[in-house]
Amino acid sequence: MNTLILLRHGQSEWNKENRFTGWVDVDVSAAGLAQAKQAGTIIRERKFDFDIVFTSYLKRAIRTLWMVLEETDRMWMPINTDWRLNERHYGKLQGKNKDETREQFGAEQVQIWRRSYATPPPPLEEPAPQTDRRYADVNIPAGESLKDTLERVMPCWQQRLKPKLVAGCNMLISAHGNSLRALAKHLDGMDDDEIMKFEIPTGVPLVYQLDAKLGVVSREFCES
Amino acid sequence: MNTLILLRHGQSEWNKENRFTGWVDVDVSAAGLAQAKQAGTIIRERKFDFDIVFTSYLKRAIRTLWMVLEETDRMWMPINTDWRLNERHYGKLQGKNKDETREQFGAEQVQIWRRSYATPPPPLEEPAPQTDRRYADVNIPAGESLKDTLERVMPCWQQRLKPKLVAGCNMLISAHGNSLRALAKHLDGMDDDEIMKFEIPTGVPLVYQLDAKLGVVSREFCES
Repeated sequence: MNTLILLRHGQSEWNKENRFTGWVDVDVSAAGLAQAKQAGTIIRERKFDFDIVFTSYLKRAIRTLWMVLEETDRMWMPINTDWRLNERHYGKLQGKNKDETREQFGAEQVQIWRRSYATPPPPLEEPAPQTDRRYADVNIPAGESLKDTLERVMPCWQQRLKPKLVAGCNMLISAHGNSLRALAKHLDGMDDDEIMKFEIPTGVPLVYQLDAKLGVVSREFCES
Repeated sequence: MNTLILLRHGQSEWNKENRFTGWVDVDVSAAGLAQAKQAGTIIRERKFDFDIVFTSYLKRAIRTLWMVLEETDRMWMPINTDWRLNERHYGKLQGKNKDETREQFGAEQVQIWRRSYATPPPPLEEPAPQTDRRYADVNIPAGESLKDTLERVMPCWQQRLKPKLVAGCNMLISAHGNSLRALAKHLDGMDDDEIMKFEIPTGVPLVYQLDAKLGVVSREFCES
């Protein structure tokens, strides 16, 4: 039996300001840091084990992971990072306040962008010149639906995550609402409507117990 | 040409208290954290490049690395850890104040333990039961001379560090006074006396430029 802990980063500065974040590298807020610490405490107190960790290329997930490693006395673990665990790319909506976006595009349209499985947001018209070395080998999307997000998360699952679980590791993944939704959809076999209603709160460990074939034995949000 | 940055962790709580630390997992002090941040600022401002990072299993080195990654906007980099980069194991001296140790054993004897290349400290008589999972596969030493330290650092160099440098990577290693001395001794071809006089201050990047055969082209302590 494997333990797989999915952890959405603590509240970010832009979560707090109700802005679409996506791939913008916004840090956690003070409240988010406290959530991350609390997540670490829960993992320690509940004695959930993990011996390999993954995170995205975005600092709100990385700092959340650091805090958990500190709280669980596992700072010595190597940290694996993968851009494919990044948040859904929110295209032209990135940086915009959600209320303003509703005023500009209409609440119905915004709801579709947020809650339709396969509808991408309006794309970045002119993608910023690629100067960020972390994405030097990545074809940065101009905007993604959850479906698009899932399609780049799954190769990471197949190539890096699943083999470690199959080999018997217990794993912690510190990532984002939508990259974790993609994993949950796959693990739980949710359909396209179900996954859009499935909310993962910030800083609350979602703990799976998996059998040898990685079938879900149990799934629990661990709030305390 | 490769850049190799050796960074000794910022001042630890026990550096401050003048105690032998070794493998005891003491954190950096507030001053040490500021040193680590300053090291990151220097690396950024001097535009020293690195694209792979290594550290030990000890949190004073890991936290120093985290601070440098933060200051250089490289939190997204995977973190490689290796117990062989740990500090010299100080045996029975670990935890003891250096002045008290001199009173107990005599200044001359303590000077020999600290400054003789091949003399180990008095060993732990009864090694603590091995309950620390990070060392589950490690034969924890009972006490090491610098020579002993070098003998376990070198396989790490050969197996993990050197191949990456040969492949063209620029590297940052955040580690400890004596594990870094071992690397410096090897790189610079220092003899046993020279290395004992070679001091690496906490939090000051020691920056090597290496040629294609990893010969030392230049070496500089970068204090600002």
